[in-house]
Amino acid sequence: MDKVQLYINDNKERFINELFDILRIPSISAQSEHKEDMVRCAEHLAVALMKAGADHAEVLPTAGNPVVFGERKISDTAKTVLIYGHYDVMPVDPRSEWTTEPFEPQIKDGRIWGRGADDDKGQLFMHIKAFEAMCATDSLPCNVKFMLEGEEEIGSAHLYDFCEQNKAMLAADIILVSDTSMISMDIPSITCGLRGLTYMEIEVTGPNKDLHSGIFGGAVANPANVLTRIVASLIDQQGHITIPHFYDKVRELTDAERKAFNKAPFSLEAYKSSLDVADIEGEEGYTTIERTGIRPSLDVNGIWGGYTEEGTKTVIPSRAHAKISMRLVPNQDFNEIADLFASHIKAIAPSSVKIDVKFLHGGAPYVAPTDMPAYKAAERAIEEVFGNKPLPYYSGGSIPIISGFERILGIKSLLLGFGLAEDAIHSPNESYGLVQFERGLQTIPLFYKYFAEA
Amino acid sequence: MDKVQLYINDNKERFINELFDILRIPSISAQSEHKEDMVRCAEHLAVALMKAGADHAEVLPTAGNPVVFGERKISDTAKTVLIYGHYDVMPVDPRSEWTTEPFEPQIKDGRIWGRGADDDKGQLFMHIKAFEAMCATDSLPCNVKFMLEGEEEIGSAHLYDFCEQNKAMLAADIILVSDTSMISMDIPSITCGLRGLTYMEIEVTGPNKDLHSGIFGGAVANPANVLTRIVASLIDQQGHITIPHFYDKVRELTDAERKAFNKAPFSLEAYKSSLDVADIEGEEGYTTIERTGIRPSLDVNGIWGGYTEEGTKTVIPSRAHAKISMRLVPNQDFNEIADLFASHIKAIAPSSVKIDVKFLHGGAPYVAPTDMPAYKAAERAIEEVFGNKPLPYYSGGSIPIISGFERILGIKSLLLGFGLAEDAIHSPNESYGLVQFERGLQTIPLFYKYFAEA
Repeated sequence: MDKVQLYINDNKERFINELFDILRIPSISAQSEHKEDMVRCAEHLAVALMKAGADHAEVLPTAGNPVVFGERKISDTAKTVLIYGHYDVMPVDPRSEWTTEPFEPQIKDGRIWGRGADDDKGQLFMHIKAFEAMCATDSLPCNVKFMLEGEEEIGSAHLYDFCEQNKAMLAADIILVSDTSMISMDIPSITCGLRGLTYMEIEVTGPNKDLHSGIFGGAVANPANVLTRIVASLIDQQGHITIPHFYDKVRELTDAERKAFNKAPFSLEAYKSSLDVADIEGEEGYTTIERTGIRPSLDVNGIWGGYTEEGTKTVIPSRAHAKISMRLVPNQDFNEIADLFASHIKAIAPSSVKIDVKFLHGGAPYVAPTDMPAYKAAERAIEEVFGNKPLPYYSGGSIPIISGFERILGIKSLLLGFGLAEDAIHSPNESYGLVQFERGLQTIPLFYKYFAEA
Repeated sequence: MDKVQLYINDNKERFINELFDILRIPSISAQSEHKEDMVRCAEHLAVALMKAGADHAEVLPTAGNPVVFGERKISDTAKTVLIYGHYDVMPVDPRSEWTTEPFEPQIKDGRIWGRGADDDKGQLFMHIKAFEAMCATDSLPCNVKFMLEGEEEIGSAHLYDFCEQNKAMLAADIILVSDTSMISMDIPSITCGLRGLTYMEIEVTGPNKDLHSGIFGGAVANPANVLTRIVASLIDQQGHITIPHFYDKVRELTDAERKAFNKAPFSLEAYKSSLDVADIEGEEGYTTIERTGIRPSLDVNGIWGGYTEEGTKTVIPSRAHAKISMRLVPNQDFNEIADLFASHIKAIAPSSVKIDVKFLHGGAPYVAPTDMPAYKAAERAIEEVFGNKPLPYYSGGSIPIISGFERILGIKSLLLGFGLAEDAIHSPNESYGLVQFERGLQTIPLFYKYFAEA
């Protein structure tokens, strides 16, 4: 064990305690009541970067939540690694399904439980602590920059401008991101593809007030019924999305590509049993791995209208709403898809209701090349820690800003994530395995080492 | 003006103040947190009956909310009128749309504003005060019984048993009910038909927890999407309900009946403009009056699932729900319809989800004959007060217990309601016009007089 690994080993209990302080801050970017928590979390992280060994670190304002920037420069000639992470977390509802307090982290069954334990506080904190270990042992082989944002879960709206305005400050050879998952601890993987995202909200308004469903039932358009018709019609019986021109730019993979793609280990029985579903559902003609990796999708993320409490209320609601997001694959443009969606919804809405369609956020898909030096360095580091060479993996998830980095800063990202499906990110009872945290800590300094040598 | 009308005129300000005391009690039967308010409201009404002139009045327990029973007997030979009303009210959500406090009644623009102002506290209170006026002036021409329940808005579940167990106590020549509306103050009407009701709740369960919509989107059944498919399929493009055998027992009216039925004054333009809708929607081949009066309907009363708060959450919800009610017409059996609904939903649900279908409450349709003495007496009383002969009217609403009374007690009901569409019952900003309240007070004693003479 070298001195970096020894340092990590000697300090890992303290690292967990420090992570807990960050997990306790309810930095939910989607809810404006947490505005102050966002600032508090950013300030906390700037201090953490300074303590870890940064030359300087600061909380930089944006039109939204602030960005934490910090750096340490070792030389003009060394390579520069820009760490990107996000300190904002998802909302915690349904609150009642949590078995621990979401913002009172605890360790149980070898895992850290709490909102953000994995996504992304747990993962970004490994980078701060790996950086500390390299600084403390005088082993840092690269220049390091940190850019930690507070709006990833709501689309990174203000980070694009931030990048435009700080290109020189953010200059780097690679952007290193731990905000993704591996197939398993035995089958490590590096994420090479991310889907894009277009997130929309529909409001259907019928009568100008809630109506008595007896007196009016059958004679007026019920906006909740109309909403179900509209939403149901967006996917046909073959699982295809029916929005005109939705698939126009989707690249069909060749048979050879599909064959390679389907080599990733996958058990449908294990998948179904882990979700407790008797059957799956998706686009006809594609495997489950393809459905999430290379095919776009459309999901209702939320739907509401009328009386939703205990008991009964015989009402025709005045309004009904749905939040609907689409995952996009390479070549699909999220703004174009938003326009296609809005036009289609308006075109199919009956004249008996008014329709409002809002674009909430979006991001482009991303593909990482497996032949770049950073990928090779990561592959070597992972193999050394995990004992197995990582597979390239196409995730169904989205990190919208990643393609933005490439466009604005001209820098590729390496998606070196240590999450697992069981971490239940975005769900109640999010957790992060201690073994994942430790292996991440071990892998990151090795990545620096091999990347510096490359 | 006779002495009864004089008494009413002299005391009407006090009557309003007394009504306000009742409106202040938040007796929402659908919400269990109001359990004690139900009892408080019942006790308040029993006292009010005693003060009005009842020989005795009491709060009688049921397995649910109590029933207030009171009576005054003038002779063995006089006819007996049984007043039925309900002291429970609808929930007040969406709370934010109320412009006054729902349980702080006030008078504004010649109307009483507050939950229950019309339905049914305002209407039942006219009966208590008309009774008081007749008692106080020694003019009561009939025996009177009051039966005021606290579960009408949730289906009168325990009143059926109460009637079964108290047949002798409830014996009467007519049941008099003010819980319906008139066409307008200029076109008074008596409700001769009520639709029945079957109220159901569907729960669709997909994966065992909320999932990340990126990682899983496109590969698993999203219960919210599935729910929209199921609900949308329940009504076809012609506005027909698609549940097999749903229409089997619906009686088609003859051309002559339909012609007579459509004689009631109706302006589609005024209807649309009062609801602020550009178009209406309903079953093909029927007029608006027919769609609510003689045809069954199916409405989503509530729908919910996933993330419904501010901003975005990229989640596939584990569960999605809908409350759906169907209005029924003569010969349709509400239990049978509940079974048909549940079987159909289960039959069309895909194997990728689990489905739970619950029956929440129901009631049979009702038709009142226009040739019975009570109808004739009401017709004469209304004509005298309103200046116009009332039209027979078929309401789209339901009072499930009314058909129960006929079945269990063998007594017909007279639906002598003084509501108006603008009262917005079940909606935010419920109100009841002072002129409606006064005309009701004037009409009721005349009804007693003519009914006693008949």
